[in-house]
Amino acid sequence: MSCSDRRAALRALLPGAGVDALLVTDLVNVRYLTGFTGSNAALLVHADGDAASRFCTDGRYRTQAAAEVGDLDTVIDRISAVALARRARRLGVERLGFESDSVTVDAHDALAEAAGVPLHRAPGLVQRLRAVKDAGEVEALRQACAVADAAFAELLAAGGLRPGRSEREAALDLEDRMRRLGAAGPAFDTILAAGAHTAVPHHRPTAAKLRSGDLVKIDFGALVDGYHSDMTRTVVLGRPADWQREMHALVAEAQAAGRAALAPGTDVTAVDAAARDVVERAGRGEEFVHGLGHGVGLQIHEAPALARTGTGTVESGMVVTVEPGVYLPGQGGVRIEDTLVVRDGGPELLTHTTRELLEV
Amino acid sequence: MSCSDRRAALRALLPGAGVDALLVTDLVNVRYLTGFTGSNAALLVHADGDAASRFCTDGRYRTQAAAEVGDLDTVIDRISAVALARRARRLGVERLGFESDSVTVDAHDALAEAAGVPLHRAPGLVQRLRAVKDAGEVEALRQACAVADAAFAELLAAGGLRPGRSEREAALDLEDRMRRLGAAGPAFDTILAAGAHTAVPHHRPTAAKLRSGDLVKIDFGALVDGYHSDMTRTVVLGRPADWQREMHALVAEAQAAGRAALAPGTDVTAVDAAARDVVERAGRGEEFVHGLGHGVGLQIHEAPALARTGTGTVESGMVVTVEPGVYLPGQGGVRIEDTLVVRDGGPELLTHTTRELLEV
Repeated sequence: MSCSDRRAALRALLPGAGVDALLVTDLVNVRYLTGFTGSNAALLVHADGDAASRFCTDGRYRTQAAAEVGDLDTVIDRISAVALARRARRLGVERLGFESDSVTVDAHDALAEAAGVPLHRAPGLVQRLRAVKDAGEVEALRQACAVADAAFAELLAAGGLRPGRSEREAALDLEDRMRRLGAAGPAFDTILAAGAHTAVPHHRPTAAKLRSGDLVKIDFGALVDGYHSDMTRTVVLGRPADWQREMHALVAEAQAAGRAALAPGTDVTAVDAAARDVVERAGRGEEFVHGLGHGVGLQIHEAPALARTGTGTVESGMVVTVEPGVYLPGQGGVRIEDTLVVRDGGPELLTHTTRELLEV
Repeated sequence: MSCSDRRAALRALLPGAGVDALLVTDLVNVRYLTGFTGSNAALLVHADGDAASRFCTDGRYRTQAAAEVGDLDTVIDRISAVALARRARRLGVERLGFESDSVTVDAHDALAEAAGVPLHRAPGLVQRLRAVKDAGEVEALRQACAVADAAFAELLAAGGLRPGRSEREAALDLEDRMRRLGAAGPAFDTILAAGAHTAVPHHRPTAAKLRSGDLVKIDFGALVDGYHSDMTRTVVLGRPADWQREMHALVAEAQAAGRAALAPGTDVTAVDAAARDVVERAGRGEEFVHGLGHGVGLQIHEAPALARTGTGTVESGMVVTVEPGVYLPGQGGVRIEDTLVVRDGGPELLTHTTRELLEV
């Protein structure tokens, strides 16, 4: 799907949102709709079509904008959003929408003043489009997941997770391998935790050494063409203790239940519940302290949220993570996470590393 | 200066902002005031002192919060900001301030509903404190700048900038060296541009090969203990052409003028003008398409802005970049950037790499 097609899909949502034009200021949304990858830009999408729409960035990006956004008239202005609010005024836009879920209170004031009319809240329109991936996006995500799988396999094969190595060394090794395999970088700061640190869901790697008998939890991903992959595996250094084996088996069962629940039309809370019920039936619901998963794409966290507090349903073409975890403070924790495409015939796994408990 | 001291300094600003308490939701500001480094948190700073103040994060960070924020009562709640707005209501806070420069329009609605009173705009209070660094922060920045200097010296010594190498390879090499020298990572995505790409101020490294005779512009920094360094050097592969030498000399002269203008009490627009005048007198003002510099610390861009559109003065203890550039589309560009501490006796350079045109 071209950026022009995406803008057309957005225009089709404008009447429902009660606006004649939308000022897109969230940079990820601007990228999705135009292909522009710089750090300052805004886009005015007019219901009348691309001829009435405008892209704006500042002088630093004149050359880049010409290369990336060839098919839209470009305005050069340092304060892009305000410049386009002024343009909307000149175009006589009566009902101008703005992204109330990302525009700050102070920025809203400046935009409303420039537009000369009250603005209308129009949150989440582009995010709604972005939640369902087109074929090109799925390919980028497939590639990002493949790089992460390959880097993890290399790390294990090279003895990258061995007693005596620090969490930080092992994490850098994994990130280096992803870069060498073609990633622009890690999709986010790698979480690599050993021993009792595995009980901290979002642990940052430290100088602590991996030790024989440790659980090692690695949550990581690759960034490829702007798209993020996300996976977690928890392995054991040597032979697992009973509690480690049992905790891993419980999480694996919950994870499989969560994946199996990913049918188009299912409420996101039901997907979360499918996995959570498994953990709760084992009497460990209190140890599963986060949501089940999230959409992934141009951002590492995007719509939909697969969580008790989420809203809406999963739909064919969404790409989401399924990542239950169980954490016992002071002792250890396990998380298993895959990235999947929701499909009519059942979800397609993009993460191919085994989900069995690996003894390394 | 301890986090407790920083909170005391913030409390001293509350009467002037017309509020009894401030809801701090910007995560970098929360980190500055508490030491907390997780991805979800909020802080209620009450004028009555720490006993009436509260920190909030979610269940994933219970262990981390106990370790990092030992000196404040901690509330565990998934939607931290809303939980603290409710707490402010229970405490009977009448005038509750919020960070209107980072809170979104939608989030504001949720906070105001939870607080049960209209909220008061209080933008930039913590940023104002953060602009002037304490001794510990300057040391972290000094270390971050030293890592960047050392990595750049290594890169040159190892022949890392040589014809036939791609921009991307050279950039990854430099980033690897910063990590090995102790950086948590690059302070931002390294800009490494060769040949005509140097005319793009924020060029991202590509597969394009470096060639003999090219200008190569490298804008990069190291992240150390949460603090960011920022430097740019433009070198030439081989002997410089006259236009390259002249462009570099002009930018170096402007950069020196900008540094010399960094006296406490000077208006930020005057600092910008000191460098810009040099470029304009050479008839190239149109080719200097960005501001002169910016504050740097827990964020790569923070207060103050040294720019024509900036406000306020530079003060002793601020840490800023000075980075004029001249860009000729299709041909090439030069930028030279240092990080400096503003001091009463004249600025202290934290970047020690030579500013002469290096022939590599």
